[in-house]
Amino acid sequence: MQTKILSGKARILAFAAVGGEMERDGPLSGCFDFLSDDQYFAQPTWERAESEIQRRTFSIACGKAGLSPSEVEAVFAGDLQSQSTASSFAMAENNASAYIGLYGACSTMAESLGLAALLTDCGHFGNAAAVTSSHFCAAERQFRLPLEYGGQRSKTSQWTATAGGAVILQSSDEPGIYVSSVTFGRIRDSGIKDPMNMGAAMAPAAYETLRSHFGDLSIEPDWYDLIVTGDLGDFGHSVVTELFAKDGIPLNNYNDCGRLIYDLETQDVCAGGSGCGCSAAVLCGYILREMTKGTFKRVLFAGTGALMSSTSSAQGLSIPGICHAVALVSSL
Amino acid sequence: MQTKILSGKARILAFAAVGGEMERDGPLSGCFDFLSDDQYFAQPTWERAESEIQRRTFSIACGKAGLSPSEVEAVFAGDLQSQSTASSFAMAENNASAYIGLYGACSTMAESLGLAALLTDCGHFGNAAAVTSSHFCAAERQFRLPLEYGGQRSKTSQWTATAGGAVILQSSDEPGIYVSSVTFGRIRDSGIKDPMNMGAAMAPAAYETLRSHFGDLSIEPDWYDLIVTGDLGDFGHSVVTELFAKDGIPLNNYNDCGRLIYDLETQDVCAGGSGCGCSAAVLCGYILREMTKGTFKRVLFAGTGALMSSTSSAQGLSIPGICHAVALVSSL
Repeated sequence: MQTKILSGKARILAFAAVGGEMERDGPLSGCFDFLSDDQYFAQPTWERAESEIQRRTFSIACGKAGLSPSEVEAVFAGDLQSQSTASSFAMAENNASAYIGLYGACSTMAESLGLAALLTDCGHFGNAAAVTSSHFCAAERQFRLPLEYGGQRSKTSQWTATAGGAVILQSSDEPGIYVSSVTFGRIRDSGIKDPMNMGAAMAPAAYETLRSHFGDLSIEPDWYDLIVTGDLGDFGHSVVTELFAKDGIPLNNYNDCGRLIYDLETQDVCAGGSGCGCSAAVLCGYILREMTKGTFKRVLFAGTGALMSSTSSAQGLSIPGICHAVALVSSL
Repeated sequence: MQTKILSGKARILAFAAVGGEMERDGPLSGCFDFLSDDQYFAQPTWERAESEIQRRTFSIACGKAGLSPSEVEAVFAGDLQSQSTASSFAMAENNASAYIGLYGACSTMAESLGLAALLTDCGHFGNAAAVTSSHFCAAERQFRLPLEYGGQRSKTSQWTATAGGAVILQSSDEPGIYVSSVTFGRIRDSGIKDPMNMGAAMAPAAYETLRSHFGDLSIEPDWYDLIVTGDLGDFGHSVVTELFAKDGIPLNNYNDCGRLIYDLETQDVCAGGSGCGCSAAVLCGYILREMTKGTFKRVLFAGTGALMSSTSSAQGLSIPGICHAVALVSSL
């Protein structure tokens, strides 16, 4: 079975979200633990600014968990920079936690949370953190054109969030919010080659992972109070909705992190947010916060990633998509 | 405890190694399942050649395991290309296995094997694969200068292997070779900035992970028939040996994959091999093969990674190192 059912011991001890200027101007402004007007986060480069986002997010989450960073056994982390350097340089100063580097593009928060959950649930780790980030300027330099070119964006393009999220998991039987199941996705390549249309490239992977998840657990989508992909944006969200509609399955409780983090009417973000930090910040800033308040009891968090690089796009290859789904249940 | 002790159920069902021309000319020539004289592996680019190495290695390992690729529940994979595209494009054609993307630079084989082992050991996965690769030409383009420049190499530099390795793990109590423990490493940054001297950058991480491993299990290094790092090369190997010597601990059974894959006297590889594919191929071509024959009963496989990128080096940053250790025991 593609979906792994946990025993209820992967409990979420604490979480934190950090964002930048665009995130401050968005509808989730009040949900962040820290917002910076300085896109450099007092660092000399955008790349190091992103490391600072991860350090700060992790540090705030540790503080909320009542742990020092050195008391966290392992950090599962990843980002969009080549060779995941935002994460490795962020965690290079943490000389006590094991570091497990991941790459799942914008699905990294779900991937890291899913792996950390399985390994705390079975007791191999007493606690573990899942940490991811993205930075608009670092990602533009990485994947697209120098910002100074002022390149035009298409309507289906997405805005990489300058943000980070961190979750601290603890192996525990106590009541709280815990990871109840994880569905690791399969790669789906539907032949789309336009890096300005990643939502469409990832949507089939999201559809298939969600279908597998519901099928494996013999549940309907409305078993969840909220199903959220991250980050397909507005266009990818409509593709997933249509694919389910074709199957005769209405998705009444479905949204996407890329639509939640920005105001698509007033902010110039085209189809919405993207980047590892987008779904991470929406999870850690909004979703988990609302679960703590009791707004949602059951949430399916489905991280979606576009597994291409600027080299593969330049070589004319299509964009492989992936989606990992993590089910969160509150026993509060 | 940093070291995770497994219950003996993460059994190695099959393994395979693939290499290129330089690997054919090396001392382990007879250990590969497939060797290609064509550095393009019949693909149009070096990057796609590396994906073909992964596909082929995984396919051969599946064949030896008596499984079709679609019967493997999950593939834990990674490589050196930006955004790990060698792996994602290799596995894009496998539409049945879950894909879990990792980035640990040259430590990726140990990282993927360690994670897959923990998750098959606790039964979350019935089986899983760990697959990694590297390609000399793709890595030179990624990290250094265009090959056409004919850049000079320093004596401490290493040669990225054009190779891949795959291990299929099965959750099973049957006798065989199994993963007995895993020590995930912490990042160590000793301030070295020269990407032509990665062995020295990674050696402190290797030393600390090995020390933790021996300390956690209260064993001496000679409990193992072979301790192998991968890939510190000749220079990094001597640094680790010296660090242990300072502690009064002789390492009589210690070697490095970067020294094993090539003949350092006759092949022009400076300090030896490197790249995710180097330690992967030495593990899957030589070590596991010899364990099957009974040459080694207990092996500690310690993958080492240099977690920098060409961007971080260009920005003047040092090279964070990491080392993950996986203990392999044969009950045959």
